[in-house]
Amino acid sequence: MNKIKVAVLGATGSVGQKFIQMLENHPWFELHEVGASDRSAGKKYRDAVNWILPTPIPATVAEKTVKSCEPGFESRLIFSGLDSSVAGEVESAFASAGYFVVSNSKNHRTDPDVPLLIPEVNPDHLELIKAQKYNGGAIVTNPNCSTIGLVLGLKPLFDNFGLEAVNVVTMQALSGAGYPGVASLDILDNVIPFIGGEEDKLENEPGKILGELTGDHIRFSNIKISASTNRVAVLDGHLESVQVKLKSKPDMEAVINAWKSFSAVPQQLNLPSAPLNPIHYFYEDKYPQPRLHRNLDKGMAVSIGRLRECNLFDYKFTLLSHNTVRGAAGGAILCAELMYKQGYLG
Amino acid sequence: MNKIKVAVLGATGSVGQKFIQMLENHPWFELHEVGASDRSAGKKYRDAVNWILPTPIPATVAEKTVKSCEPGFESRLIFSGLDSSVAGEVESAFASAGYFVVSNSKNHRTDPDVPLLIPEVNPDHLELIKAQKYNGGAIVTNPNCSTIGLVLGLKPLFDNFGLEAVNVVTMQALSGAGYPGVASLDILDNVIPFIGGEEDKLENEPGKILGELTGDHIRFSNIKISASTNRVAVLDGHLESVQVKLKSKPDMEAVINAWKSFSAVPQQLNLPSAPLNPIHYFYEDKYPQPRLHRNLDKGMAVSIGRLRECNLFDYKFTLLSHNTVRGAAGGAILCAELMYKQGYLG
Amino acid sequence: MNKIKVAVLGATGSVGQKFIQMLENHPWFELHEVGASDRSAGKKYRDAVNWILPTPIPATVAEKTVKSCEPGFESRLIFSGLDSSVAGEVESAFASAGYFVVSNSKNHRTDPDVPLLIPEVNPDHLELIKAQKYNGGAIVTNPNCSTIGLVLGLKPLFDNFGLEAVNVVTMQALSGAGYPGVASLDILDNVIPFIGGEEDKLENEPGKILGELTGDHIRFSNIKISASTNRVAVLDGHLESVQVKLKSKPDMEAVINAWKSFSAVPQQLNLPSAPLNPIHYFYEDKYPQPRLHRNLDKGMAVSIGRLRECNLFDYKFTLLSHNTVRGAAGGAILCAELMYKQGYLG
Amino acid sequence: MNKIKVAVLGATGSVGQKFIQMLENHPWFELHEVGASDRSAGKKYRDAVNWILPTPIPATVAEKTVKSCEPGFESRLIFSGLDSSVAGEVESAFASAGYFVVSNSKNHRTDPDVPLLIPEVNPDHLELIKAQKYNGGAIVTNPNCSTIGLVLGLKPLFDNFGLEAVNVVTMQALSGAGYPGVASLDILDNVIPFIGGEEDKLENEPGKILGELTGDHIRFSNIKISASTNRVAVLDGHLESVQVKLKSKPDMEAVINAWKSFSAVPQQLNLPSAPLNPIHYFYEDKYPQPRLHRNLDKGMAVSIGRLRECNLFDYKFTLLSHNTVRGAAGGAILCAELMYKQGYLG
Repeated sequence: MNKIKVAVLGATGSVGQKFIQMLENHPWFELHEVGASDRSAGKKYRDAVNWILPTPIPATVAEKTVKSCEPGFESRLIFSGLDSSVAGEVESAFASAGYFVVSNSKNHRTDPDVPLLIPEVNPDHLELIKAQKYNGGAIVTNPNCSTIGLVLGLKPLFDNFGLEAVNVVTMQALSGAGYPGVASLDILDNVIPFIGGEEDKLENEPGKILGELTGDHIRFSNIKISASTNRVAVLDGHLESVQVKLKSKPDMEAVINAWKSFSAVPQQLNLPSAPLNPIHYFYEDKYPQPRLHRNLDKGMAVSIGRLRECNLFDYKFTLLSHNTVRGAAGGAILCAELMYKQGYLG
Repeated sequence: MNKIKVAVLGATGSVGQKFIQMLENHPWFELHEVGASDRSAGKKYRDAVNWILPTPIPATVAEKTVKSCEPGFESRLIFSGLDSSVAGEVESAFASAGYFVVSNSKNHRTDPDVPLLIPEVNPDHLELIKAQKYNGGAIVTNPNCSTIGLVLGLKPLFDNFGLEAVNVVTMQALSGAGYPGVASLDILDNVIPFIGGEEDKLENEPGKILGELTGDHIRFSNIKISASTNRVAVLDGHLESVQVKLKSKPDMEAVINAWKSFSAVPQQLNLPSAPLNPIHYFYEDKYPQPRLHRNLDKGMAVSIGRLRECNLFDYKFTLLSHNTVRGAAGGAILCAELMYKQGYLG
Repeated sequence: MNKIKVAVLGATGSVGQKFIQMLENHPWFELHEVGASDRSAGKKYRDAVNWILPTPIPATVAEKTVKSCEPGFESRLIFSGLDSSVAGEVESAFASAGYFVVSNSKNHRTDPDVPLLIPEVNPDHLELIKAQKYNGGAIVTNPNCSTIGLVLGLKPLFDNFGLEAVNVVTMQALSGAGYPGVASLDILDNVIPFIGGEEDKLENEPGKILGELTGDHIRFSNIKISASTNRVAVLDGHLESVQVKLKSKPDMEAVINAWKSFSAVPQQLNLPSAPLNPIHYFYEDKYPQPRLHRNLDKGMAVSIGRLRECNLFDYKFTLLSHNTVRGAAGGAILCAELMYKQGYLG
Repeated sequence: MNKIKVAVLGATGSVGQKFIQMLENHPWFELHEVGASDRSAGKKYRDAVNWILPTPIPATVAEKTVKSCEPGFESRLIFSGLDSSVAGEVESAFASAGYFVVSNSKNHRTDPDVPLLIPEVNPDHLELIKAQKYNGGAIVTNPNCSTIGLVLGLKPLFDNFGLEAVNVVTMQALSGAGYPGVASLDILDNVIPFIGGEEDKLENEPGKILGELTGDHIRFSNIKISASTNRVAVLDGHLESVQVKLKSKPDMEAVINAWKSFSAVPQQLNLPSAPLNPIHYFYEDKYPQPRLHRNLDKGMAVSIGRLRECNLFDYKFTLLSHNTVRGAAGGAILCAELMYKQGYLG
């Protein structure tokens, strides 16, 4: 099989690096081009990047010359790890020039014709791109890193029991803030109880993701959500304390079974980045924990534990997902795999 | 003034050490005796203890001989930092022998005739001890470390607006687990989403503390509470993400004013360990933070910030208090100060 | 090929867990039995162990019944991760009963007829076991975790330029202290400048390892070594600041080449756990770093960087190795692989 | 007493903030003006600064208007916490305009006529400023943060036994890198074995500080020093593993006595910021530790422990000092106190 040429925009940033790491040895995609800001353009990738990952820069990528982020790429599939200060316009420009852009940035997430895609949750929303006004190109977005894990855990409850209200308090990892991100002087022996813009995303994105595709638009689901977000001294892995009110309250075993038996389109299509089981349930009180479980199933699975009765909602539980894998680069690659397998890449 | 002789039981443990540190230079109390397990009894304190605090062992305490934890102490006021595995019986024995025991352990907290005391919140509950069946002695208990901060923050809301429901998710400090407590291999780059017994305490103790003294018993208040507790890599200071449903919803400024203007009996009596202002409100989004604000007002104040509207409750906010000062030794000393000033110590 | 049955003693401890993790899917060895203290004996492994590793307990091991640590095992090759309080006698008993014991404990390291083995450094020392007085059995020991990395880095210097003196100051990982080991309250925002017994090991073990086998004993090399050891808040990976005085001082490139070209018996024999390159040299000033490089080459390689002139010695540099992989379980397994390949296992 | 008006340059930076914190309530000095970059000039201090200290901004300072860093200040005593990229010229300009500048920056440290001052070590070097070519003004510099603690610990050995060689390996705190400084993603679960320029300072500054004032210049002492510097996950407090070769080797008790009995000009003059005892010796193996001992004696004392024989030098020991107090703001204030008491401020 001839691999599909892909490019990464924002390739020197922390999300870009994660894309590059995860695309190494991908069975379908081949990293062909890297784009970054004008400061980096023209340099060899290894000279332009401050590589922060524990695995070395893939040898073939290290020698590539960084391109400017403007159409003219040979790859038609573009992963965007651009900063939101520039992502909006650059991604539009690429899409208008006929590229398929899978973006990790927030800019286009609320566009009515842009899917906010979690392949296990709303694969049918991909149809939206047929209505996009780009000339043959398209934009697909990955939800916020803390949203993806949450909605994956909610989806089986939504499908089986109906979901009325969700309360979520997060303890989020440092890598979610990019690099250099959080100063060590701010977080050692500390917690920061604020992450700019994060609570809005957690409260608003799930309604679109769990919404219903009706013709050429999404009818948002009307789940009421309240989110409180905190930054903790953890490298990777967002932990979330979740409470849910369901339309009909099942017993605990039914909830756990809904999670454990959950399987969806990416599993059925055997997409290369799909976890074997999207959701792992732990019976031990002390689990899940970020350091122990964030890498489960290639970092693409969600870990859940501590399901228990709640005095104010129906149930409460703890949920964990890897924010830069499932919640960013890995999630976007899975989106692209779905697009390819379903024929959207032409 | 002749200082009142006091003793600390469980003096070699982490709470005991904090008692000793905080009693140094106390204007009313003089640490006269230290008691610990039979393993330590008979040794000089400095040889018996593995001192873990950054300030040195007070010189006069270092040379004291550790006593066994049984009546026969000269001090009539006893601070108990005993482990709950032994605290119940030892404290009863002391009280029955005529001692005034102020305990930090959970054992007697639910006894109907034992006050669960926060001097700013329910000072009148002290009257309960008149009904105690101990021969002239008494037991007074300090609530759980995560409860004290929470209830201090709730009290002005309870008084001014009525309190129907509280949801709290905690990020608790390592010192709450005692010493050696949490293994470093368990918490570095990690969060542990479980603290044994803690959620029960947070859900049940506030009802008694905010209850009404009626004759010789407490009528519990019927606030509905749900708690989820987590351990984070912070040395001291429990951070709590709180949501409240009030009986009548005020505007935000009224809530903040209720906190900022809150002052109570310990402030009016000018008790030595009382914070000047029990509650500090921060307008900066990123505050309060454990490392920055845990020591405010001698570690005895509660810090609150991020008051905002909630999609599921009326309001949500972040609350911080020092778990081993306000939440343990300092809180217990404040209880004793109240008892002394109000004539309970005879 | 029929795999060789092996057992792990001290299987529930932190070193034992690492043995079990690393033996999963081993091409030559099959974990057949697990032994632990009487407290655990008779239980299923999954019930006896407090598993602390991020990968799950291998399914076949989880169901094994833990045995007492006394001869009667079916496996003839025994990996010992026993605590030094019991390892001496237990290992002697197994060896006397005809077992081959590869031990990670310190007890037999200084026995004159017991090899202190690093397969890349002194594979010929294995011959010592022919002189052992055990009836067909034998004991082989793994050096201390901080010694192994150091001596691997020194070996090419010793061979090429002669080694007169070594000064080493370590910054050692928490996992070196076992579990629960270092209390989080002791190490967060802190360094502990003392590790009991560690400096002695670092100063004395290299003389034996780099010694010369002469007939049936080792003539120790007379390198002068001074060691200072510190514990830092790192999960895995001992970092060492090293200074060396050589017999003849080469230029820096010659030193780097000696490291980069170093290859030894395990590489030639293609032992399954051998790193492809035992030593990786980094030219970036800021490398090596524990978190970034500890897992290099399956955690079995040593990383070196910052070679520079020294005002007091000839050269100074920074060295890193994974203390529980190369420095414990992985190192011991490599010893056993060498023994097998060289026919010592009969 | 009328307090002396002083100013802080670089007032919004991390060193500047520490100056402001430490000058609050100073018995002799009154913070009258604050200077910072043009970006901050003209704003109120509280609006210009991102305050990172756990104590609040002193109320009187919060409302001051930040000035540009150019002569025209009313205060004649200027503390400079300027970044080294601008400190050189700004400090010269102030000195030339008649101000007394006490600087924490490296720029003028090696000027032959500028004292590199540690008041307990080389108070006589202050005479150098009489030879300075500034019109009535002067520049005095504080050594590097890791140098100050080291030289304080060496001084009694230098005086009593003669000092030939010093080897030092540091584990330095995050605050030494300023704010934001080290990214949390770089240091959590990690050590960085490199600090730019730090080893040069540690190897070269002590020769000047311990040098002899001869007429109008310093004859450097010829101690041979080798330094290796590392960054660890500690907020404040540089820990140093030190080895010394002395001219005549005393017994251990003599060394300890030399430290414990050390007292110098600042103690004799009773300078407000002087520690009662410049050096504290700990007999416990595990001490000193950064978190436990950095604040000893107002953060102005040096803590030493673990004195022991060394196989390569005469002795080795562990030394700790607070890098932003003794090693920066506090050290500079002590210099100014000495200048005032000795009549240098006119």
